[in-house]
Amino acid sequence: MTAAYDVVAIGNAIVDVIAPATEAFLAGEGLQKGSMTLIDEARAASLYDGMAAGVEASGGSAGNTIAGIASLGGRAAYLGKVASDQLGEVFAHDLRAQGVAFDTPYLDCGPATGRCLINVTPDGQRTMATFLGAANQLTEEDVDPAVIQASAIVYMEGYLFDPAPARKAFARADEIAKRAGRRIAITLSDVFVVERWRDDLLAFMDGSVDVVFANENELMALFRTDDFDSACERLRPMVEIAAVTRGEQGSVILNRGETHRVEAFPVQRVLDTTGAGDQYAAGFLFGLARGLPLQTCGRLGSMAAAEVIGHYGPRPQTPLKDLARSQGLLA
Amino acid sequence: MTAAYDVVAIGNAIVDVIAPATEAFLAGEGLQKGSMTLIDEARAASLYDGMAAGVEASGGSAGNTIAGIASLGGRAAYLGKVASDQLGEVFAHDLRAQGVAFDTPYLDCGPATGRCLINVTPDGQRTMATFLGAANQLTEEDVDPAVIQASAIVYMEGYLFDPAPARKAFARADEIAKRAGRRIAITLSDVFVVERWRDDLLAFMDGSVDVVFANENELMALFRTDDFDSACERLRPMVEIAAVTRGEQGSVILNRGETHRVEAFPVQRVLDTTGAGDQYAAGFLFGLARGLPLQTCGRLGSMAAAEVIGHYGPRPQTPLKDLARSQGLLA
Repeated sequence: MTAAYDVVAIGNAIVDVIAPATEAFLAGEGLQKGSMTLIDEARAASLYDGMAAGVEASGGSAGNTIAGIASLGGRAAYLGKVASDQLGEVFAHDLRAQGVAFDTPYLDCGPATGRCLINVTPDGQRTMATFLGAANQLTEEDVDPAVIQASAIVYMEGYLFDPAPARKAFARADEIAKRAGRRIAITLSDVFVVERWRDDLLAFMDGSVDVVFANENELMALFRTDDFDSACERLRPMVEIAAVTRGEQGSVILNRGETHRVEAFPVQRVLDTTGAGDQYAAGFLFGLARGLPLQTCGRLGSMAAAEVIGHYGPRPQTPLKDLARSQGLLA
Repeated sequence: MTAAYDVVAIGNAIVDVIAPATEAFLAGEGLQKGSMTLIDEARAASLYDGMAAGVEASGGSAGNTIAGIASLGGRAAYLGKVASDQLGEVFAHDLRAQGVAFDTPYLDCGPATGRCLINVTPDGQRTMATFLGAANQLTEEDVDPAVIQASAIVYMEGYLFDPAPARKAFARADEIAKRAGRRIAITLSDVFVVERWRDDLLAFMDGSVDVVFANENELMALFRTDDFDSACERLRPMVEIAAVTRGEQGSVILNRGETHRVEAFPVQRVLDTTGAGDQYAAGFLFGLARGLPLQTCGRLGSMAAAEVIGHYGPRPQTPLKDLARSQGLLA
């Protein structure tokens, strides 16, 4: 069956609150720079009290990725849970305005729409504290079989390993995708996710996953090693394709016996690295769904990542399709 | 009595939703480029449906101005009405995080926090459609006499002439300020506000206002003339000080017999002009409250306006105090 969607993404549906911060503020709040910490509603309120004035923008790792795929001209769908409140309305609007199909029912009686409090230090690094809220309530009933069956690639966040009901949604989507002959892709998301769920992630990757995204720290944490190359060789036989990002050093793509190296795109000024990994995945997955060579997939990823770190906010502000054309990456 | 606050601002408390748009979209929605239109909740919902993905940021003209004054190191307070909902929480947080005293009680049973849907065309111009919501419910009971008495300058938006209860709040603040010997400043806000409330504005200016802010279009609309100089001469005897902005041509300050001309600050790239007038008022009012020469007040205004048009969002992203010091405008 031809796929109606290039990619369906399943993720924690989150609105970002982005504000500048000092290193001292992070230390005082006990936040480790560059990490993502899960917090409850009370902690979210007290942390927000201490933060500087900010801006709000729809986020969530897989939500950012799917917005990027749509920005490249991809046909895209999203599954994730928001509440029927103002931030939920914003989240849904921003996906639909980008052309992403989003029909997960809103949560009516329960926690508010999830929020990620992002403190951006002057070096452009982001430190995230996430109150999952309604995102925590994604269940297997929210997994629409028709959407999964209609998507060439089903993409899931490692972050989804945290909420227990979402794990079941994850498993259900995997089962439907397998039966429909669709590819499964995941991102490891975060070093702390890897630490929390190492064995589950490894088992899932070995048994089910076709495409994995990781940055070098996540990959080395997964195999408890300091040696990048040996971590790559342990990952290689587990999946069909692995794309490992290395910041300014670009990315490495493993595909069975082959290894492709892709350079990072030049960036005038790094303002906020939020969403860089998400956009790399967007470019790569779009290329993969369209059957482009892996080197081109990687370059589309690098290009999309470069767009997003040049401004505040985790989603592209320039249509990625236009950028890709101007770079000769798309016809 | 020494003033505890340099400025208290009274305004429509609004959260901005900012998205890129084409000229064709504005035409299709019947919106006149550069204007501010009042809309109801149903129209806000349908317009939002058609808008591109955006970002949310606390706004409201006087709210932006008071945030700018705090960013300059000024002691600042704000009176305005938000609902006890997520956007209201964001609005209050952003003011307090900036150091602005904000204690107007939240609206509990009534419309949601007000929203301004801002479509930014590629030329950087913003076209605004405002659903006032809770902002519409500011009443004279919300005017805290202690705050008015403690402020060197009481600053009010022309936009406040629209909601009937706010008009009474306006009058009450004026009465308290007069008794305490405080200065009254207003901005004309918008050409359409001038058209709707010309006689009321003229009567209020003539009887009560010490300092008025206007752009050249608003000023010429006020006196129904195409001649800038004659409009200036009609305004001059009505108020102690008038600051009239002219975009790239800078501003003109009228002070009884004196006229000061101030150049615009150079801007690398105009991205979004939302908040330019608000920040001009911020710089000017801060200088005035601190007793600086009018030429310096104007330059502080030009500097603050230049900061805000170089990025999306209506409030400064760089501390204005640091900018002013680097320009030699503050010690």
